[in-house]
Amino acid sequence: MNITVKEIASLVKGTIFGDENTAITNLAKIEEAEKGDLTFLYIGHYLKYFKTTQASAILVKSDFNRDRTDITYIVVDDPNKAFFKIIRTYLEPEFPLSGIDNTAYVHPDAKIGSNVALGKNVVISKGCIIGNNVKIFHNTVLLENVEIGDDSLIFQNVSIREDCKVGKRAIIHPGAVIGSDGFGFEPDAEGVFHKIPQVGNVILEDDIELGANVCIDRASLGSTILRQGVKLDNLVQIAHNVTVGDNTVISSQTGISGSAHIGKNCMIAGQVGIVGHIDIADKVILIAQSGVSKGISKPGTYFGAPAKEFRHAMKLEAHIRNLPEYAEKISTLEKEIEELKKLINKA
Amino acid sequence: MNITVKEIASLVKGTIFGDENTAITNLAKIEEAEKGDLTFLYIGHYLKYFKTTQASAILVKSDFNRDRTDITYIVVDDPNKAFFKIIRTYLEPEFPLSGIDNTAYVHPDAKIGSNVALGKNVVISKGCIIGNNVKIFHNTVLLENVEIGDDSLIFQNVSIREDCKVGKRAIIHPGAVIGSDGFGFEPDAEGVFHKIPQVGNVILEDDIELGANVCIDRASLGSTILRQGVKLDNLVQIAHNVTVGDNTVISSQTGISGSAHIGKNCMIAGQVGIVGHIDIADKVILIAQSGVSKGISKPGTYFGAPAKEFRHAMKLEAHIRNLPEYAEKISTLEKEIEELKKLINKA
Amino acid sequence: MNITVKEIASLVKGTIFGDENTAITNLAKIEEAEKGDLTFLYIGHYLKYFKTTQASAILVKSDFNRDRTDITYIVVDDPNKAFFKIIRTYLEPEFPLSGIDNTAYVHPDAKIGSNVALGKNVVISKGCIIGNNVKIFHNTVLLENVEIGDDSLIFQNVSIREDCKVGKRAIIHPGAVIGSDGFGFEPDAEGVFHKIPQVGNVILEDDIELGANVCIDRASLGSTILRQGVKLDNLVQIAHNVTVGDNTVISSQTGISGSAHIGKNCMIAGQVGIVGHIDIADKVILIAQSGVSKGISKPGTYFGAPAKEFRHAMKLEAHIRNLPEYAEKISTLEKEIEELKKLINKA
Repeated sequence: MNITVKEIASLVKGTIFGDENTAITNLAKIEEAEKGDLTFLYIGHYLKYFKTTQASAILVKSDFNRDRTDITYIVVDDPNKAFFKIIRTYLEPEFPLSGIDNTAYVHPDAKIGSNVALGKNVVISKGCIIGNNVKIFHNTVLLENVEIGDDSLIFQNVSIREDCKVGKRAIIHPGAVIGSDGFGFEPDAEGVFHKIPQVGNVILEDDIELGANVCIDRASLGSTILRQGVKLDNLVQIAHNVTVGDNTVISSQTGISGSAHIGKNCMIAGQVGIVGHIDIADKVILIAQSGVSKGISKPGTYFGAPAKEFRHAMKLEAHIRNLPEYAEKISTLEKEIEELKKLINKA
Repeated sequence: MNITVKEIASLVKGTIFGDENTAITNLAKIEEAEKGDLTFLYIGHYLKYFKTTQASAILVKSDFNRDRTDITYIVVDDPNKAFFKIIRTYLEPEFPLSGIDNTAYVHPDAKIGSNVALGKNVVISKGCIIGNNVKIFHNTVLLENVEIGDDSLIFQNVSIREDCKVGKRAIIHPGAVIGSDGFGFEPDAEGVFHKIPQVGNVILEDDIELGANVCIDRASLGSTILRQGVKLDNLVQIAHNVTVGDNTVISSQTGISGSAHIGKNCMIAGQVGIVGHIDIADKVILIAQSGVSKGISKPGTYFGAPAKEFRHAMKLEAHIRNLPEYAEKISTLEKEIEELKKLINKA
Repeated sequence: MNITVKEIASLVKGTIFGDENTAITNLAKIEEAEKGDLTFLYIGHYLKYFKTTQASAILVKSDFNRDRTDITYIVVDDPNKAFFKIIRTYLEPEFPLSGIDNTAYVHPDAKIGSNVALGKNVVISKGCIIGNNVKIFHNTVLLENVEIGDDSLIFQNVSIREDCKVGKRAIIHPGAVIGSDGFGFEPDAEGVFHKIPQVGNVILEDDIELGANVCIDRASLGSTILRQGVKLDNLVQIAHNVTVGDNTVISSQTGISGSAHIGKNCMIAGQVGIVGHIDIADKVILIAQSGVSKGISKPGTYFGAPAKEFRHAMKLEAHIRNLPEYAEKISTLEKEIEELKKLINKA
C-alpha cells in the first residue's frame, strides 16, 4: 500500500493532528511498527509502547494524550474498528486460485457453479453441488452429495464426507473434517462395543468459519447443525447431533459432546468441555478450561469445572487461596478452647 | 426404507399395539420425527417429547404409559438395542468406492488383496500388505511396510507412517495420523534438545476405530499398541509406547502420555489427561477433564485433577462449595471465644 | 544391527563386565528385551524388570548392583545418554524418498534446491523457495511464497499457507497446519462477527519440530514466531501473534492464545492453556492441565488452574484433601463452645 494519512482519515472519518501528507506504506502492531507504518492501540496493555513506537501515524481516541510531536494522529471514535476497516480496504487477501485444475476430479454427476476454482488433486464426488465463486484448494476431498454454498473458500487437505451441506461464504481451514462418524457404540454382555451406524449428516448454515483440524461429526440420525455465523477456532470438536446457535464463537480445543444444544451469541473460550444431552442458553460466556456438566438456563458468565456462575466461582477460588489461613485459625481456636476449658475447670 | 411396523416388530421380536400395517419410511430422533418415522426414547431426558412427536411408531418397554392412541407402539425388552438393530439392518451405509483408481499409486513390491478399493491419489508404498475387501479413500498415504487387515475402511487424508500395522475391520476417520514420531528429546547442558530417534512402530489389533484427526505416535523402541476392540474418538492423542487394553473406549481430546499402560474395558471420557509411565487397571472409568497423575490399581470411577475416587472427589467438591459457610463459622467461633474470654476474665 | 558389546562399549566409552564378544542384534526396552538385545534402565520405575529381563547386555552406572551373572554389563556415566547415542548411531531412520515425483507439481516460479525429494501429489506454489536436501512427502501442499530451509523433513498431508517461512532442519509431522488464519472477528451491534483479515505470516526458525496435526495460526499483522529449537508435540495450538522462545518444548494438546509471549527454555506439559496478551518468563515449567491466566515473571514450576507456584499449589491441594477434617473440627468447636457457654452461664 502507498497512501497518505489524508486518504486514510477520509476512509475512517477521522480528524488529523499532524501532517496530512504523511505517507503510509504498511499497517503494523505498535510494538513492531516502523517508519511508514500506521498503527493503533489494540488494548491498554500496549500503551507502554507508545513512547518508543517508530510508527508514522497512529489511530487514537479524542481523549488520547497526544504528547509526541513526531507522529501523526488520526482521531476517531473507535480506533479498533477504524483499523479493521483499513485492513479490510487495503490488505484483504486475494487467493490466486482460478479455474479447474486438470488434476482435479469432478464426477460427471456433480454440478459446478460459475467461476469455481478447484486446486490440484481435489476430489468432487458424485452428486456434489458446488455454488458460484467457490474456491477449493489442493488435495481437498468431498465425498458423495456434498453441497457447498456460493462464495465459500475451502483450503487444502480438508475432508468432507457424504451428504454434508456447507452454506454460503464459508471459510474452512486446512485439515478440517466434516461428517466423520459420531462416537456411538453399543456394548454387549462381554464389554465388546458394537458400532451404531451414524446415518445423519452435518449442516453448516451460511457465514461459518472452521479453524484448522476442526472435527465435526455427522449425526447418528438427523443432523449436526451449526447455525448462521458460527465461528470455530482450530482443533474444536463437535460431536454428533450437537446444534450451535447463530453467531456463537468457540475457541480452540473446546469439545462439545453429543446432542448438546448451544444457544445463540455464546462466547466459549478455549479448552472448555461440555457434556452431552444438555441445553446452554443464549448469550452464555464460558471462561477457558471450564467443564460444563449440567444445562445452563440463564445468560451470564460461567467458570470452573464443574462450571459455576463466574462471581461465585471467583469467590470459591478466593476461599481456596485462604485455606492455609482457615486451617491455622481452626488450630488456634482449638488451643483457645482447651485453655478456656482449663480455666473453667479450675474455677 | 419402506416397510411396515409388522416387519420391524418381526425383526426385533416386539409386540405391536396399534396398526401393524403402519408404513415406516425413516428412523428419527423423537424430537425431530415426522409422519412415517419410527422413533424410540434414547434416555429419559427425551420423554418430554413423547406428547408432541409426529412419529408414526415408537419402540417402548412393556411398562410404558401408552396413552396416545394416534401412534403405533412396538413393545420390546430393550428399545435402544432394538432401534440399533433396525438401523443396522436398514440403514447401514455403503461406500460406493470400488476398484483401484488410476491416480492411486501402488508400489510394485506392495501386496494388494482381493476386492480392494483405492481412491484417487492414494499412495501405497513399498512393502505394504493390504488385506481383502479393504477400502482406502482419496489422498490417504501409507509409507513403507504398512499392513492393513481384511475388511478395513480407511477414509480420506489419513497418514500412516512406515512399519505400522492395522488389524482387521478397522475404521479410520479422515485426518488420523498413525506412526508419527514420539516426543522424545535429550537436553544438553545448554538446554538445546536433541532428537532421540523413534524407531518403533504402532500396532492396532483387530476391530479398532479411530476418530478424525487422532494422533498415535510410534514407539521409541518396540510398539505402541491398541488391543482388540479399542475405540478412540476424534482428536485423541496416544503417545509413544502406550498400550491400551481390549475394548477400552476413549472420548474426544483425551491425551495419554508416553509408556502409560491402560487396562481393558476402561471408559475414558473427553479431555482427560494421563501422565506417562503409569498403569491403569481394567474397568476404570474416568470422568471428563480428569487428570491422572498416578497409577490406578482398582477398577472404579475416578474424577478430578488430580483424579480421585469418584465419591471422594464429589465429597471434596461439596466441601469446596461450602467454603463460604465454613469461613463464616470460623469467624463466628472467633467472636464467641472472645466473648467467652471476656466473661471468664470478668468472673 | 549385528555388533558386539565390545564395539558398543567403545562407542560410548564404557567398561565391560562380562563377555565383550556378546552379540547384539537389537536395542529394546528392559521389559520387552529378548536374547541378543541391549537394554538400559530409563527410569527407576523399571528396575523391577531387571531380575527377569532376557536382554544379553545392559548399560548401567558404576554403582549398579551387578548381581546377575548371565548378562553383560556396560558401565557408563550416563546410561540414558549412552543408549541414545547408540540408537542414533545404529538405528537412525532413513527415508527412502528421492527425486521429484512426476505427480508432484512445482510452479515454474518456485526455486528448488539441490537433492530435494518431493513425493506424490506434492504442490509447490508460485514463489516458493525450497532449500537443499529437503524431503517433502506425499500430498503435502505449500501455497505461494513459502520458504523451507535446508535439510528439512516434511511428512505427508501437511498444509503450509502462503508466505510462511520454515527454517533449516525442521521436522514436520503429518497433518500439521502452518499459517491458518488467526481467530479474529469484530462483533457488530447485532452480535454478528465480521472477520478481521489475518495478513501476517508464520516464521519457524531453525531446528523446529512440529507434531502431528499441530496448528499454528498466521499473525493478524506481523508474524507468529517459533524461535530456534522449539519442539511442539501433537495437536498443539499456537494462536496468532504468539512468540515462543528458543528451545522451549510444549507437550500434546496444549493451547497458547493470541499474542502470548513464551520465554526461552520453558517446559510446558500437556493440555495446558495459556491466555492471550501475557508474557511468560524464561525457564518456566508448567505442569499438565495448568491454566495460565496471568503473566509469569519468574522462572520456576507452576501448576493448577489458575496456575500457582508449584509448592503453593501442592499445599492448597493438601488443604483441599483435608477439608472433611476441617469441617468436622469446625463442628466440634461449635459444640464445645456451646458446652462452655452453658457451663459459664451456670457458674
